[in-house]
Amino acid sequence: MPETTAGGGATPHAAPSPLAPAWLTLPADLNALEPKMWAHDAERGPDGQLAVGGLTVAELKARFGTPLFVLSEPDFRARARAFKDAFDSAFADICGGVDVYYAGKSFLCSSVAAWVAQEGLRLDTASGGELAVAAKAGLPGELIGLHGNNKSDSEIARALDMGVGRIIVDSLAELERVARIAADRGTDTPGAGAGGGEAGTEAPRAKVMLRLTPGVHAHTHEFIATAHEDQKFGLSMAPGTASAGFEGEHGGTAASAAEEAVAAAVDHDSIELLGVHCHIGSQIFEPEGFELAAVKLLEFIAQMRSAYGAGLPELDLGGGYGIAYLPGDAPRPPGEIAEALAGVVRATCGRLGIAPPRISIEPGRAIVGSTTFTLYEAGTVKDVVVDLPGGSADSGGAAAETGATAVRRYVSVDGGMSDNARPVLYDADYSVTLAGRASDAPAQLSRVVGKHCESGDIVVRDAYLPDDVGAGDLLAVPGTGAYCWALSSNYNYLARPGVVAVSGGTARWIVRGETEEDLLSRDMGV
Amino acid sequence: MPETTAGGGATPHAAPSPLAPAWLTLPADLNALEPKMWAHDAERGPDGQLAVGGLTVAELKARFGTPLFVLSEPDFRARARAFKDAFDSAFADICGGVDVYYAGKSFLCSSVAAWVAQEGLRLDTASGGELAVAAKAGLPGELIGLHGNNKSDSEIARALDMGVGRIIVDSLAELERVARIAADRGTDTPGAGAGGGEAGTEAPRAKVMLRLTPGVHAHTHEFIATAHEDQKFGLSMAPGTASAGFEGEHGGTAASAAEEAVAAAVDHDSIELLGVHCHIGSQIFEPEGFELAAVKLLEFIAQMRSAYGAGLPELDLGGGYGIAYLPGDAPRPPGEIAEALAGVVRATCGRLGIAPPRISIEPGRAIVGSTTFTLYEAGTVKDVVVDLPGGSADSGGAAAETGATAVRRYVSVDGGMSDNARPVLYDADYSVTLAGRASDAPAQLSRVVGKHCESGDIVVRDAYLPDDVGAGDLLAVPGTGAYCWALSSNYNYLARPGVVAVSGGTARWIVRGETEEDLLSRDMGV
Repeated sequence: MPETTAGGGATPHAAPSPLAPAWLTLPADLNALEPKMWAHDAERGPDGQLAVGGLTVAELKARFGTPLFVLSEPDFRARARAFKDAFDSAFADICGGVDVYYAGKSFLCSSVAAWVAQEGLRLDTASGGELAVAAKAGLPGELIGLHGNNKSDSEIARALDMGVGRIIVDSLAELERVARIAADRGTDTPGAGAGGGEAGTEAPRAKVMLRLTPGVHAHTHEFIATAHEDQKFGLSMAPGTASAGFEGEHGGTAASAAEEAVAAAVDHDSIELLGVHCHIGSQIFEPEGFELAAVKLLEFIAQMRSAYGAGLPELDLGGGYGIAYLPGDAPRPPGEIAEALAGVVRATCGRLGIAPPRISIEPGRAIVGSTTFTLYEAGTVKDVVVDLPGGSADSGGAAAETGATAVRRYVSVDGGMSDNARPVLYDADYSVTLAGRASDAPAQLSRVVGKHCESGDIVVRDAYLPDDVGAGDLLAVPGTGAYCWALSSNYNYLARPGVVAVSGGTARWIVRGETEEDLLSRDMGV
Repeated sequence: MPETTAGGGATPHAAPSPLAPAWLTLPADLNALEPKMWAHDAERGPDGQLAVGGLTVAELKARFGTPLFVLSEPDFRARARAFKDAFDSAFADICGGVDVYYAGKSFLCSSVAAWVAQEGLRLDTASGGELAVAAKAGLPGELIGLHGNNKSDSEIARALDMGVGRIIVDSLAELERVARIAADRGTDTPGAGAGGGEAGTEAPRAKVMLRLTPGVHAHTHEFIATAHEDQKFGLSMAPGTASAGFEGEHGGTAASAAEEAVAAAVDHDSIELLGVHCHIGSQIFEPEGFELAAVKLLEFIAQMRSAYGAGLPELDLGGGYGIAYLPGDAPRPPGEIAEALAGVVRATCGRLGIAPPRISIEPGRAIVGSTTFTLYEAGTVKDVVVDLPGGSADSGGAAAETGATAVRRYVSVDGGMSDNARPVLYDADYSVTLAGRASDAPAQLSRVVGKHCESGDIVVRDAYLPDDVGAGDLLAVPGTGAYCWALSSNYNYLARPGVVAVSGGTARWIVRGETEEDLLSRDMGV
């Protein structure tokens, strides 16, 4: 039995706890795994243990320790292929298929970069460091895109050295820098302009996409359209946003920063302008936002082809595809979004009378997010008496004390905000399951917290766990493939967990965990 | 001139920008440094450059690169001494002085640990990794405290091996584990119970403080008192929170988890119960919350001495002392809080008729926070047209579009949320100054953003900078000594900046910056 500070201990719930948020339902079976939140090869075995690819969490704990990121390699490959196949199929008759760039910022190591290429995808990077990982994986430059609102000259030069397939340019100033750096390079520079130079062109050319802000922002089920976007990224498509000196084809008040950039790009001999790009949000469940952005960018392409003779053969609709973190989350499958988008692109190109550009997309979380769970060992379990807010628990009333109390169970694990910052950063919700065994104990509303010296150090804010969870139990938090390892820190000098790839009964580090030697390696002594 | 997407560029402000938050005033002199936000040896030199300890930011950039944490060692030592001296002085006649534990979680490396000890302070740690840093610095165990809501057995054993001066126990379950681990150790274990065992006692004894939750929470100018605290830390002092089987001295309904822990601790031969501890919040400017907590804990000490014969010779009032992040922030100086607290402790002990316990405190941010600034190099500068909300800018009305627009300047730097997560984590506000030169240009409301592929990647949300800031300019963000390096990540494979200590014209790495080799060192290849 867990320790209690509750004068008799918490009563396990036959009915929902008054502390439970409205969206949290009391599960019928605490041992069940919700398929959409887990890798396809994760299951609870006959002994009640969670296993993935046939390896139990006890085996993984024994070999690799906890906390641990456990990634299913076949699941990663399957999700990558599913995106590629769904979009290729939907767009086959429009533009012969779709280039799918895996967004490395969500989670990247050299193994993942290699898998991406093996499954027919490409790789989005966002820094020189991410380019270095791609290089370590041996990825051909033409499969790589480089993003960033503030690329350094050395990052741009490195990308050109690697012969990247596209640099996604974020501002007019950067366009000029890319043009200058590309022009300054000799024609004999390895990789420069490879496959991209026109016949007879001497100077190496940098392949460039322009990142535009179409005034569309999407998240889960909603999207909003605004005249202007208050964000650091991209070139505005709104009229009146061009520089003072730029008149454009329809007069300065109509000209946009986006138009100005196209005009500048087509004038540079060292630039090959591939097309335009947008990115409208994150954790998006429905296609409407993507559709609206596609229409706006296709109209822009039509105008620019007509006004400047810009070819603009490519259109990147960015990433932001959502995943299920909770049982109630229901993002549309890739195929549904692909079909909806294809319909809009087909119709819009027909209406505008333009040849469809080659489409590309940039899923990251939607490929890697659900492939991975974090394995923790539980430690201190504490039942804490808390004051109930005035009125009924779901009235939303002020938190005036009524004298009524309830018990919240805090289950501490051996990691926390250092290996998953998203609950603190974004108030992100996760789920959790007892992984080392099945349990028939009744449900107990629980808050899973880390071991950091910070009261906000929450891993799973609200979840039902079996009442008999105690110190030494293994817990698994699914959906931690994206933006967890990538954002991990050494807060409180905790070593960052490594990532183990499981495949068909075997497991290996793809990124090893940190050691105490790693933690102290940069400390220069007294 | 910076790039503009604003149809003519932003107009520098003679009056405040309509986008400025209400608290942000237009500075009279953009080159002035607000003394309370900087190290005492930071100044703008005759050439207009920011310098610290006589070293200019250009010299620091040339030797160490950017981004860079620049810490003033004399300022750190002075702030550490100021806390120790102020509290020693205020409490001299009450308990002979105060033990000041520097909270290593705010920023720790072996140099800092050594400085702390040299200035007469002690060190709070929160993990085995922080204990390892203390060991590397050669700190005597008796100067070290170990915190944590979920200490592992190995962390407890390590602390006992090091002969730490106190383990701050967070739960009844942990008390039992500490007692068991201490009892299982041989009497010849090095350091165990050193200086703490009673004459004639054979078993080594673990020195223990009990962390209690007094129902007080404080932040900046406010504090609140609640019956129960909804948090993972500590043992509740509220009646009715003891275990079902525990009756206590006044009956089970009156008994608290805190009382139960005292009763258990005094029964363990392997535990030396030093006293009780509380921690009431963070970034606290006023003494009232500390005073209320002190009264509650002194009353508890009086009851426990009477009921259980527990000596409880020590009382730790925790940390949370605030610093100035913005010009308008005015935390009370340590001496004022010390005097206020001493008055309350003196009066309360007199009223209760008890001998005053030895007081200890745990400042972290208040010592290191203002010693350090982050040096960045600016890159892309972009003027972005944004929609003004309906009504006047400060009406707080809904963000309905009126057609009115304003320009927000985005200044990108070569770091971001990887080296300072606090703006994203806690909506924390910082200030910024042009560091590489002085400027007479008019003020321009600016948002300093990082280079990460994330729109929320904000370093300084709102600040006035000279209008002529452009790519290549050095910017300095003060107040980044606490919880910045400590929380830093490798998001987007950016290398974490190192920390340079400057002292009297010399500078040296105390933690070196990461290299690309470091970034890839745990990647296990394809």
